[in-house]
Formats: sequence, C-alpha cells, structure tokens
Amino acid sequence: MSEAETPEPLDERIPGSAASQSDKLGLPPGTLVHVGERHCAEVALTLVAYGPEAVEEIALGGPEDLAGHLGTERLLWLDVIGLHDVETVGEVGERLGLHPLVMSDMVNTHQRPKAEIHEGYVFAVVKMVRWIGGDQGLDTEQVSLLLGSNWVATFQERPGDVFDAVRARMREGKGRIRKSGPDYLFYALLDVIVDHYFLAVEALSEQTEALEDEVLEAPTRATLARIHGLRQEALALRRAAWPLRELVQVVLREESELVDPSTAPYLRDLYDHVVQVIDIVETQREILSGYTDLYLSSLSNRMNDVMRVLTVIATIFIPLTFVAGIYGMNFEVMPELKWRWGYPLVWGVMAVMAGGMLRFFRRRGWF
Amino acid sequence: MSEAETPEPLDERIPGSAASQSDKLGLPPGTLVHVGERHCAEVALTLVAYGPEAVEEIALGGPEDLAGHLGTERLLWLDVIGLHDVETVGEVGERLGLHPLVMSDMVNTHQRPKAEIHEGYVFAVVKMVRWIGGDQGLDTEQVSLLLGSNWVATFQERPGDVFDAVRARMREGKGRIRKSGPDYLFYALLDVIVDHYFLAVEALSEQTEALEDEVLEAPTRATLARIHGLRQEALALRRAAWPLRELVQVVLREESELVDPSTAPYLRDLYDHVVQVIDIVETQREILSGYTDLYLSSLSNRMNDVMRVLTVIATIFIPLTFVAGIYGMNFEVMPELKWRWGYPLVWGVMAVMAGGMLRFFRRRGWF
Amino acid sequence: MSEAETPEPLDERIPGSAASQSDKLGLPPGTLVHVGERHCAEVALTLVAYGPEAVEEIALGGPEDLAGHLGTERLLWLDVIGLHDVETVGEVGERLGLHPLVMSDMVNTHQRPKAEIHEGYVFAVVKMVRWIGGDQGLDTEQVSLLLGSNWVATFQERPGDVFDAVRARMREGKGRIRKSGPDYLFYALLDVIVDHYFLAVEALSEQTEALEDEVLEAPTRATLARIHGLRQEALALRRAAWPLRELVQVVLREESELVDPSTAPYLRDLYDHVVQVIDIVETQREILSGYTDLYLSSLSNRMNDVMRVLTVIATIFIPLTFVAGIYGMNFEVMPELKWRWGYPLVWGVMAVMAGGMLRFFRRRGWF
Amino acid sequence: MSEAETPEPLDERIPGSAASQSDKLGLPPGTLVHVGERHCAEVALTLVAYGPEAVEEIALGGPEDLAGHLGTERLLWLDVIGLHDVETVGEVGERLGLHPLVMSDMVNTHQRPKAEIHEGYVFAVVKMVRWIGGDQGLDTEQVSLLLGSNWVATFQERPGDVFDAVRARMREGKGRIRKSGPDYLFYALLDVIVDHYFLAVEALSEQTEALEDEVLEAPTRATLARIHGLRQEALALRRAAWPLRELVQVVLREESELVDPSTAPYLRDLYDHVVQVIDIVETQREILSGYTDLYLSSLSNRMNDVMRVLTVIATIFIPLTFVAGIYGMNFEVMPELKWRWGYPLVWGVMAVMAGGMLRFFRRRGWF
Amino acid sequence: MSEAETPEPLDERIPGSAASQSDKLGLPPGTLVHVGERHCAEVALTLVAYGPEAVEEIALGGPEDLAGHLGTERLLWLDVIGLHDVETVGEVGERLGLHPLVMSDMVNTHQRPKAEIHEGYVFAVVKMVRWIGGDQGLDTEQVSLLLGSNWVATFQERPGDVFDAVRARMREGKGRIRKSGPDYLFYALLDVIVDHYFLAVEALSEQTEALEDEVLEAPTRATLARIHGLRQEALALRRAAWPLRELVQVVLREESELVDPSTAPYLRDLYDHVVQVIDIVETQREILSGYTDLYLSSLSNRMNDVMRVLTVIATIFIPLTFVAGIYGMNFEVMPELKWRWGYPLVWGVMAVMAGGMLRFFRRRGWF
Repeated sequence: MSEAETPEPLDERIPGSAASQSDKLGLPPGTLVHVGERHCAEVALTLVAYGPEAVEEIALGGPEDLAGHLGTERLLWLDVIGLHDVETVGEVGERLGLHPLVMSDMVNTHQRPKAEIHEGYVFAVVKMVRWIGGDQGLDTEQVSLLLGSNWVATFQERPGDVFDAVRARMREGKGRIRKSGPDYLFYALLDVIVDHYFLAVEALSEQTEALEDEVLEAPTRATLARIHGLRQEALALRRAAWPLRELVQVVLREESELVDPSTAPYLRDLYDHVVQVIDIVETQREILSGYTDLYLSSLSNRMNDVMRVLTVIATIFIPLTFVAGIYGMNFEVMPELKWRWGYPLVWGVMAVMAGGMLRFFRRRGWF
Repeated sequence: MSEAETPEPLDERIPGSAASQSDKLGLPPGTLVHVGERHCAEVALTLVAYGPEAVEEIALGGPEDLAGHLGTERLLWLDVIGLHDVETVGEVGERLGLHPLVMSDMVNTHQRPKAEIHEGYVFAVVKMVRWIGGDQGLDTEQVSLLLGSNWVATFQERPGDVFDAVRARMREGKGRIRKSGPDYLFYALLDVIVDHYFLAVEALSEQTEALEDEVLEAPTRATLARIHGLRQEALALRRAAWPLRELVQVVLREESELVDPSTAPYLRDLYDHVVQVIDIVETQREILSGYTDLYLSSLSNRMNDVMRVLTVIATIFIPLTFVAGIYGMNFEVMPELKWRWGYPLVWGVMAVMAGGMLRFFRRRGWF
Repeated sequence: MSEAETPEPLDERIPGSAASQSDKLGLPPGTLVHVGERHCAEVALTLVAYGPEAVEEIALGGPEDLAGHLGTERLLWLDVIGLHDVETVGEVGERLGLHPLVMSDMVNTHQRPKAEIHEGYVFAVVKMVRWIGGDQGLDTEQVSLLLGSNWVATFQERPGDVFDAVRARMREGKGRIRKSGPDYLFYALLDVIVDHYFLAVEALSEQTEALEDEVLEAPTRATLARIHGLRQEALALRRAAWPLRELVQVVLREESELVDPSTAPYLRDLYDHVVQVIDIVETQREILSGYTDLYLSSLSNRMNDVMRVLTVIATIFIPLTFVAGIYGMNFEVMPELKWRWGYPLVWGVMAVMAGGMLRFFRRRGWF
Repeated sequence: MSEAETPEPLDERIPGSAASQSDKLGLPPGTLVHVGERHCAEVALTLVAYGPEAVEEIALGGPEDLAGHLGTERLLWLDVIGLHDVETVGEVGERLGLHPLVMSDMVNTHQRPKAEIHEGYVFAVVKMVRWIGGDQGLDTEQVSLLLGSNWVATFQERPGDVFDAVRARMREGKGRIRKSGPDYLFYALLDVIVDHYFLAVEALSEQTEALEDEVLEAPTRATLARIHGLRQEALALRRAAWPLRELVQVVLREESELVDPSTAPYLRDLYDHVVQVIDIVETQREILSGYTDLYLSSLSNRMNDVMRVLTVIATIFIPLTFVAGIYGMNFEVMPELKWRWGYPLVWGVMAVMAGGMLRFFRRRGWF
Repeated sequence: MSEAETPEPLDERIPGSAASQSDKLGLPPGTLVHVGERHCAEVALTLVAYGPEAVEEIALGGPEDLAGHLGTERLLWLDVIGLHDVETVGEVGERLGLHPLVMSDMVNTHQRPKAEIHEGYVFAVVKMVRWIGGDQGLDTEQVSLLLGSNWVATFQERPGDVFDAVRARMREGKGRIRKSGPDYLFYALLDVIVDHYFLAVEALSEQTEALEDEVLEAPTRATLARIHGLRQEALALRRAAWPLRELVQVVLREESELVDPSTAPYLRDLYDHVVQVIDIVETQREILSGYTDLYLSSLSNRMNDVMRVLTVIATIFIPLTFVAGIYGMNFEVMPELKWRWGYPLVWGVMAVMAGGMLRFFRRRGWF
C-alpha cells in the first residue's frame, strides 16, 4: 500500500474558491480538490498540547511548525480551520501520514458521514449541526476527525464550532479528559457534536408543537410553507444523523488498537444517543407529515364553510328574485296586481319562502 | 475499567428543577444532570426487605441508611422516587456500585428504553404508561430498573406508580414472588408495567372503535382533532413499546448469571406480551390512518351533497327568472302581453320547465 | 424448572364471564384468568381414542375421567370446548402436565398465534376463521393445540368448529390419519384450519372483485363503507395469518422428538399454504387500497360532471336574464322599445348568445 | 418416508370440472383434487425421446405407455396437457415416483411458484405468462416442471404454450440442448418462460408510455380505468415473478446431484433475468402510481379551468343585471329615467363595469 | 465447464438494427442477439497499449488484428464502440476467451448493472449517464467493462463517452494510471463513470431547488409536468445507481486474484461515492414527492382564492338585485313607489346591505 499512500504532486492541486463536484472530473483519484464554499481568508492551525498536569495552546504558523511537536511525549490536538487551501491541508495530511484518498475526502465537503479504520489512524467525517433559529434554521458544517497514536486532528470548514465546551474542560482539567488518552478526546469531540444534534431536534420539536394549534385552528398559506420548511430541516437532520449509527459501530466493532477498552462504554453510550436522535427525528417527520394532511383538511374545511354560507345566501335570494320578477311582468291581465293587499301578500310569501329555506338548511346543519 | 467507574466529583452536579438537554452541554460525560420536570419536593427512598417467611417495608432517611441492609441475607427492593435531586441519586448509585454513565442515563428522563448487562448488575430503562382518559390521554413516566445479586432497585420520577399490585402480592406472599430470587421480582415489575400497556391499547382500541360511526356518519371538525389526538397517542405508545422487544431480548440473550434459568420462561412470556402490544398498536395506527381518509371523503361527500342541492335550486330558478324577465320588458309590441291567458300560460310554461329539470336531475341522481 | 411448573393454588382463579385484560392486572403471572366472552354454559370434554383398527368417541364427565385413558396404548384426541371455566381447564392442564404460563395463554383469547416447544409437549395457539358472509363477515375463534407423546388436545372457546372433516376421516379410517402418530393428527387439525383461511380469502377476493364495477361506474356512499369493511376484514385475516408462518417454522425447525420426520413434508406443505394465504391477503389489501383512491376519483368525477352541467346552465341564462333586464328598464328614451321588430329581435339576439355559448362550451368539452 | 410416498387410493379422487379450493376441504392431505377451470376435453401425453444423434416425438395413449420408455438410454421429455383428469395425472406421477403432496400441488392451479428438491427429482411450479394485448391483457397458466435422473416432465393446464422454440431447437439439434443432460432441458424450459415475462413487461412499458401524454394533456374517465387496468396487470406480473427469484436460488443452492455444475452459469444467468424482470415491473408500478396522482391533478386542473371561466362569466353579468334591475324599478321619482342620455349612459356605465372587472380578473390571471 | 464456453456457431447470430427482446425468443441461450437501437454505421476497435514509459493508440481494422497484441508485455485497453455488429463483438469475445453468456449480456443493452467474477476475467455492466440538460435530461448508455490478466476491454453502444479524462491522464502519464496494473485502469474507468453520476445528481438538485419557489408562489400546469419530469429522471438515476453498490461489493468481496490489494482502498472509496449518489438521489426523490403535494395544495389554495372572491361578488349583488326586483313589480298599490325619497332610500338600503355584507365577509377573513 506504500505507493497508494504517496500523495499526488502538489502542483496538480487546484486552490478553489466556491468549487463544485464537477471541478474534480477527470483528475486522478486522490487529487485534492476543495468541493464547497470558501468561508475564510486563511487557514488557521491551532495545536493543543496536553497532559495530566499541563495544557498549552499554540497557534501554528504553518504545517512545518508541526514537526517539532509530533514526536514528543505530550498528547496533541490539532485543529485546522479552512479547507479551501488544499495545499496547506495536504501538507498537514502528509506530515500525519494520511492516505491521499482520506485527504481527498476531507476537502470534499459533500461527504457522507462515515468512519474508516486505517493503519495507524482512525478517520471519521461528521456533519456538525447548530440550530440557528429564525429563517436560517439549521447550520451544517463538515468536520473530519482523525485519531492517531498520540494525537487527534480536526479539520473544519470555517471558524466557529461546538468544541468550546471541550476546550474549557481541557483548560480546567475537569473530568477524565486530560487524564485519558487521545481516544477519549476523540470520543469527547464526537459526543459534543451529538449533543448539538439533541439541541437541534429539541428546537425542531418545539417549533413543530408550536405549529399544531395554528394548523388545527387557523391555517394560512404561510403555515404550509412553515411545515414544508420544518420537513426540510428534519430531512437534513436525518441525512446527517443516520450514518452516525454506522460510524460509531465501525469504531466499536473494528477494535482498532487505538481505542482503549475503557473508552468502549462511552462509545456505546454515544451510540445510544445517536439512536435516540434518529428516533426523535423520525417521530418528528411522522408528525410533520401528519400536519400536512391536517393542514389540507383544515383548509378545505374552512373553504367549505365559506362556500356553504355564500351559497346558502345566494340560494335563498334567487327564488325570491324570481317571485319579484313574476310581478314585474307587464301582462295586461294579471289579477294579483290589482288586489288591495297584493304587495304585502307577496312580501309575506317571500318571507315564508326565505324562512322555510333557512329552517331547512339549518336543520340539515348547512350553516 | 476501574477509572471509568469512578464517579465525577459531586460538586460538579447541578441540582436542576425543570431542566432540558441543553443544560448538559459541554459537561464531562457521566456528569449527573437531571433532564426533565421536577415533580416532587423531596426524594423518597423506600426499602422492602423480604424473604420466604417475612417482609418488611422501611422508609429510609437517606442513602447512608442503605449501608446496614445491603450485606444481609434478606432480599431487597429499593424504590427511589424523585430524580431531580441528583446528589442523593448519585450517592445511592455509588453505594450500589453503578457506572457513572448508568446514573447519568437514569436521571435523564428523555432516555430511550433499553437494557444493559453490566458486571454485577443488569440495568433497564422503561417508560411506565398509564391511560388517564379524558383530555390527558396517556401519562408516561420513566422508570429505571436495576437487578443486582440480591437486590432490585427502581428509580421513578414522581410518586404514584403501577407497582401496587406487586407490593400487595409481596405482602400477602401470594405466588412465587417471595419464594424466588430478585430476578423474579425484576420480571414481575416489568410484567406489571407491560400489563398497563395492554390497558392503554385497550383504551385506545375502544376510543378508536367509538369514533368509527362518527367518522362514517356525522364527521365534524372535532372528529379530525380527535383522530389526530388518537394517532399521537398511538405514536407515543409505539415509541415506548418498540424498544421493549429488544430490551427483553437483551436480558434473555446475554444470559447474565443474575437471571436464573427458571425465570426464562417468564421472560419469554413477557416478550410475547410485548410483541402482542406492538401488534395491536400497529393495527390501531393503520385503522386510524384509514379513518383520516374516511373522514376526508365523508366530509367531501357531505359537502358535495350540500353543494349539489343548493346548486340544483339555483339552476332551477335562474331560467325561470329569465322567463319572468322576458315579460318584464317594456317593448311596445309584445303580443303575448295582450293575450287573455298570457299570464297563466307563462306560469304553465315555467311549471313545465321546473318539472322537466327536476325530473332530469332526479333521473340522473343529482339530488 | 420444577417450581415454575407448580400451578397456582386454585382458589386464586377467578371464574369470569365476559372478562377483559384488566381483570388480570396485578395477579401473579400464571394465574388463570379467562380473557374474552363467555360463549357456552358448560365445559364439554370429548375424548377420541383411536388406533389403526378402531376409533371410540367418549364424552367425559370431568377432568378426573381423563385418568384412566392417559396411560393406555391407544392414541387420544381430547377436545375441550369452553374456556371460561378456568378451574376445569386448569385441572385438565395439570393432568396433561402443562406449565401454568401455557394454561394462562390458553384461557386468554386475545393471544397472538404462536408455537412453543416445551419438554414433553408442543403448544400452539391459532385463530380459527370462518367466513360467515352477510354483515358478519369473518368469524374468529381462538384454538389452542397441544401435542403430547401419545395425545393431542384442543381447547376451543365455543361449540362449532372446522374439525368435522377430520372427525369424519377418523371415523371412516380414510387416509393416513389413524395409521399415523399424534403428530399427524396435530398437522391435520392445523391443515384444516388453514384450509378455512383459503375459503375466507376466496370469499374476500370475490367480494372485492364484485365491488370493482360499482367503484368505477356508480360509487355511492355505501360503496365506501363496503370498501372500508373489506379492508378491516383483510386486516383481521392478515393479523391472524402472519404469525402462522413463524408458528409452522418453529415446529419444523426446533425438531421436537414428538414430530416424526415423515410428518415434515406435510408441515412444509402447510407452510407453503400459509405463505400463499398471506400472499393473497396482501394482494387483496393492495387492490382494496387502490379502490379507495378509485372511489374518491370516481366520486369527484361524478361531482364534477354534476357541477359542470349545472354551472353551464346557470352561465347561459345569467347573460340572457341581463338582456331581459335591460329592456325592463323604464327610461323614457329607449328607441329599441318603439321598434316594430324590437321584441323578436331581442329573442333573436338571446338565441344567438345562447347558441354561441353552447357551441363554445361543447367545443371545449365542458358538457 | 416410505409410507408418506404411498399415494392415496385412487377411488377417493374426485374428477372435477371447474373446481375451487373449497372442494378440497376436509379431504386427507395428498388427495388429488383439481382446483381451477377445465380447459380441454382430454389429457394429452406427448413424449420426446432424444439423444445427441436422434429425436423422436411420441403421442402416448395413456400413462401405461410410459413404462417401456423410462428404463432406456434415451433422455425423455414428457409433456402432460390437461390437469382436470386427476386420475391420469396421478398415474403418471406414480410411475415417475412422485410424492402425493407434489401431485396434489400440481393439480391445484392456484399454487404459488416454488421449487422443491426431493429425493430423485426436482419439482418446480411456475406461472407461464403471455401478453395477449387488447382487453385480455395478460394470460397466465400454471406449469409444473419436474427434473428426474434421465427425464423432464411438464404438466400444463391447457394446449398452447411457450415451448415451441425449445421443441424447434430439439428437432433441429441446435445449440447444446440435445448434447446436454435433462438439467439443461429443465433450464431451457424455465428460460423460455422467463423470456416471455420480458415480452410481457415490454408490452406493459409500451402501454404505460403511451398513456403518459393522455394523462398529462387530455385525461378522461377512461384514462383512469386504463391506468387501473395496467396497475392490476403489473400487480399480477409481480406476484408471478417475485417467487421465481427464490425458485432459481433453491435449485442453485441446494446442489441436487441432478443439476450438473456446467448448468450452473446458465441458472445464474436465468436468475439475473428474473431480477431484471422484477426490477422493470417495480419501476412500472411506481410510474403507474405516479400517473394516478398526475391524473387526479390534471383532472382537477381542468375542472378548475372550467369552473373559473364559468364563474367569471357569471360574476361579470350579475352586477350588470343589478344595474338593469335598478332602472326597472317603478318609483315615481327617478330623475335618471327622464334624462335624454340616461339609457346610453347606463350602457356606458355597464360597459365600464364589465371592462373593469375583465381587466381585474385577467391581471390576476383568473382566465 | 469447457463445453459451456464453446460459443454458438456464428451463422446463428442475427445482425439486428433496432432490435427488441422479442427477437431473442426461443434462440439457444448464449446466442448473440443485439437488443437495443443501432447507433453507428460500423464497429470501431481502438487499442491503447501502455506501460510506465510509453503509450500507443492503435485503431484496429478488425478482431483479427488483436492477435499480435494479446501476448505482449504491454498492458492493453481495448475499446469497442458499436454493439449491433454481433459478429465482430463475438469474435472479439472469443479471442478474449469470454463465456457465450457474457457476450450475450454485453450486446443486450437492457441489462441490469452487475459484476461477475469468471475464471480469468472480471465482467461488469454499468450504465454510463450524462446530464444533457434541456428537454433531453439524462442520456444513458450501457458500457461493459472487462478486466483480464493484462488487459481491460470496454464495449460501448455508440461513439462519445466519459472516458476522455482517463485517456488524457494515460497520455500525459499523470498519477498512478500508467504505473499500475489493469485493475487500476478498470477502477479508473468505473470512477469516472460514477463521477458523472455526481454531475447528474447535482444538475437534478439544482433543477429541483429552482422549482421550489415556483411551486410555492406561482404554480402553473407546466410546473406539474416539470416535477413529473424530474421525478422520472430521479427514478432512472436510482435504477442505474442502486445495482452499482452490489457491483462494487462483488468485485471487492470475491477477491479475484486479478484485483491487487493496493487497488482495494480505491474501490472502497468508489463504493462510498456510489452510496453517496444513491443517498442524494433518494433525498431528491423525497423532496420531489413533497413538491407534488405542495403543488396540489398551492393550486387548490389559489383556486380557492379565486372562487372565494368571485363568490363574494355574486353573493353581494344577488340580494341587491332582489331589492331592485321588488320595486320593479307592477302592483297597483305599492306605497313606497309614491314616496318622494323612495328612490334614494332604496339606494341607501342597498348601500347599507352591501356594506354590511362586505364588513361581515372581511371580518371573517373571506377575501
């Protein structure tokens, strides 16, 4: 496999801005092409070197600064932000000894979440979600997590992530995080990502519940768009969450020597969380799908109410107008026209007709 | 795994009232955070110490009172009510030797039902359902059941449960319950929970059947809301019941030495019950889904009836009004107006028109 | 397992009439509680003792009469009718050596079909269906079949069953039935039950086909109720037939020594029959589900036809009435009113208008 | 198993004409009862005796003529047409050494396609389909294929089959057919049956495509019936084709010594064909299901168009008629009636109203 | 298997133009019959002979020219364009040592994608898709790929393919392609085909997104046809992509000695790509299916708006016309007609009626 691991010559790499899958066409497999939008000006490399006693955060100038740190006793967490600069990403990858196909997956932000066990490292791609709320809804960003013998590396698309809680625990030395190996850090990062899935599905559930009354009582055209929007969000969440099940299972099942047995219960707990997220998302999807039906029948109910009342009004007045039309005729011989009480009588007849129809309609429950 | 089992220092625990998943964000895994609503003022610990000959119910003052009982010959059932006080729950857990992740699962009331076989104990989370009826419908509460070598522990959210029948059998010494080991008590508690699922699905079936005539004969807007409500109940029941299948299978399959072979037939019976519950729920869901269709077509049937009758009335009178309009014209030369029998003739013509249309519509089955 | 097999003391059993699942709540598992309706006054026990040469039918006075027959050389078929008298059923079960949970399943008529291989006997619960036709549709009754070393026992809810054909073959000594062991009788009873499933699905298919023309040509409100009724029947049949697959597979797979290898091809044939029944039921369900759609679109087609014709009539007369209204105005200066041919001219104009609209509508295919 | 293979005494067999499943009720399993319609007067037995050098077609007078041929060196293909004469079929079966249940399956034409490996022979039941076109659509006939050590037997319901191509190849000695064993003939017969499935699905696809424009452009009531008809055909094809997958797999997997390894690639090729047929049928079903939706929305689109135009006409004339009504009133003091230009003015007002409404409706895109 | 590999005598092959499956009926299996359309005049055979140092492209005159190249040291890529000339294709196949059934699959362009491991070569059939855009949408062509010990062969229907990028890399010697064995070329060809699936699903996604606003805001009849068209494209893509999963898995799992272990990671990467394509297609299908619902409800929303406004107009004027009709009656005694302010009063009454109705309708939100 030695040859497969030789990265492509760097001059073939295209430093793209907003690039699409089609830019990749025809290039040799393993060529690094950034697929996705360009979010930030420069690549930022942050190294956290830690151990049970101390923790140090270092902003690296470039991939070459990595050299001095990789061989030391301290555990390392390298956080790379900005995937558009494939040259830098590629150099980091080379120094960590990554397979070119792994690097190629990392810079393609349309990746499906998955985990792969390679020799010497574990590779996982996940979607990091944050519920923004408002019109934006769900914010999704691809993160690659790598676990080596004494290091963890994360590659993100843009600044801003969900890892602050982990950084804080690292700094304060809370819990097991500084006392355990890099596999625990790897787990902790995945765990905090999955925790944000919970926040997202909670927000989704709340918005769904808030819609229920609107759907049943006063559906408007905007209601439909809102249901549609929530369904799209739920679909996106499901697409991101489903592959996580297999991802965690792959890490658990393949029993890489990089994962300590003492970390396994934590990973199993993570697996339960993922199953729970999927369970809630599926339930929300079912509820939302029921809402569409409810909306449509609420709407046609309302429409029917309107049409019924309007039609009843028209139906009452059309026969009355006919009666008026009768006595508007100009026949020379129309005895009723001569009657003393003819006019009030017609009023009376019309009142009886209208009243009869109203009673009939009401008794039938038509309005 | 020794380190993994060391619980987090207690000062990190947050005694929450109504807490949500988001309060848990960023805390080390295994930190005890209560997720759910706070239902009662204080935690109540009740210990039932029993054997073939005698049974004793003891209200414990605190976790420390547990110490004197755990080592004895008698079998123990510890019932803890109130999960919001994570400190007390944590102390009880420590004394029973539980893994911090297990305790963390217990106090998170949004848990998905599951069973885990740990060293020295079996852990199961289930949803206890009670059908309240009326507007409330289904009442769901999370219960954690733990089975140790000579003890069973149950952790509930709030006072009031479905275990009274078990307590009564325990007191009266009926059946096998006092003569058998703690695994039989563990089964008996699960069994009584599943029995209440039957009551819930029976209530659901009854309410569904009661709706059938209403749906077919006289659907109103409230009917739809009722169908929708029952579908939500059925969905909730399904979500609670589905994982129970796997739960019982895990206990049966993993063959923990804590479960005596003589208890296996009872667990298999329990499994059959769970399958039956799921079977009925699924059938109810299909029937309810059919009701929505029925409702919609009943409604549009009724609407069509209304519109048809109204439109028939309008359609009959509009041509008649036209005829009346004709003879309301003021042309100087309109011979019919001079005719002796013109007026009765017009009435005759209109009667013939109306009769003809009525016959035509009736023959076509339009009203 | 000796203790598990000790039945509960008889005084705990409740001799119920129409009992529901809720009566069972909180009683020790294995307590015999009849769940279902009470159909007959007394329990009837009929014993058929048979061998290759002779057959004898004996009406037993009570469970105690069984004693003299169980040890003999002859093969036995015990048929118990009436499950409400749990005391008698329990005593029969004890004499046959049944596990209390098995007996508890037998008297609970809401059981899901299943088979269990116990030590010394095989236990199967099935739903016996008969197509009554008319308003009643499907008649379902629970039957428990037990196969012992030299006996078969059947427990039915009420008199009247589908076994007469087997009894006739037994009396006449036709086929293998008297020459083979009790496993063949066990199979023969299951086979005749499954044969009645075929009759039921045939009746269902016929009724479904009979509906097709009605749905396409002249759907009425009753059509929908009929489709709905057939769907419920199909759902009931499916619920009863699906578990039979697994039932037969359990008996085949577990290879109890009670089932002779020479009976296996018959059981495999039975399995094929069950699969075929399920196949037809599923097809019927799909067809019926298509009928609902067809019904709705037929209905809205018909409604559209009605509305279209009515609206065309109204649309033609409204402009004509307008014209008549014009010349009903009382302006002093309206030259047309003075014209010699004004009145016929107006008739002509209106005829042209009506004709034009009719042609336009017809060319557009609107009626 | 020796006893199981003894056929039932022949006097028990009922020579049926158009028989249904219910005629079979209560008879001993393995009794030969013809289920299906009677298609031809007499049973025809044709024997093809072949070898690499020569081929001979012999019309047998009866089952007894078979005796002289079975023991010879030549390979045999026995084709039996007409299943209603169960006596003859039974005698043929006995001479070939078939199990009574196999014979019973052969004469029941409602069989689900399946394959069974018996000792000494392989038994397969398939549905032979032919696309007739026109109103008849799909013609289905049950064929049983049996493969023995040096013979193949086919049992058909009625004259006319899809095997002519095989017979021609046999006569002309084309391909491997005469040079190979009976397993190749068995395969060749299955292959030609599956080839006719392709013709059927091709015809189905063509008819489906032909419907597309009709559905989108000018749907009539007949369109719906046509879609419904094609869906029924597709359902029938799927029911016949699905079990073929398992059938071929059973023959391949069970590795009967009757199937030569050199025939395996042909069977695998056959398997691929079956999968392809199912694939196309499923796609057609999805497309047809989409057509129903399209049809309904096309229809309601068209209906909406009609109603909109009609309602616009009515809506324009109703206010105009009101204006005319105003000046038809007989008040003594109505100054407008005296005006010189009152009448033309009213015309003008009405023209402006009509024009305004027309413009408003058109700008809103209402017609 | 030696005999099975002997191809059928060539004189049996039918050189077809636009041939359908039915032309194949009854011919011996393995007979080469071209099923599909004839796209080009002649078969073109292009041979690329390559090695790490050099590459040579040779246009062959016929299959016989192949002889001199097959035994050499250089690796070969034979590209055959045009499948209608089954004679030439058959001769090429014979020289490569292919099984007649493989050749038969190659010339049948209705093949389902699959891979087969044969002795000495690997055979794969895939659908090559290109998104043309405009009315044409998706262009699909069947390509057969064969991998031998030192050669790769591709058989295409017509000129024009997606392999230009591979040819360019071959010529320029970029990446691993010339340095690796034929298995890498085999992979590279599959990879570039799958890359075009990405382009197709990207185009599909874009078109789907572009429809969303149209569906929600201004749906027309063309919108429905466009949704329908995209659903058909998605269905076609799914049908082509689904079997690719299994295809790659077969190549990976069966571990043919023709596939070097160093190529496995590339194939696994390819597998991930295929899963991703399927994932996106399924999501698009769900979104498009949601669009149909949205379209229908948008449409009925719009229709309701129109009908409501029109009905409100009619409902307001019908009572007014009735009032006008009243005072158009010719009774001799109608005191109001004599009143000085009768006429303006009637106008006032009508204004109040109209205003009241308008306010009532508006308050109810009816227009």
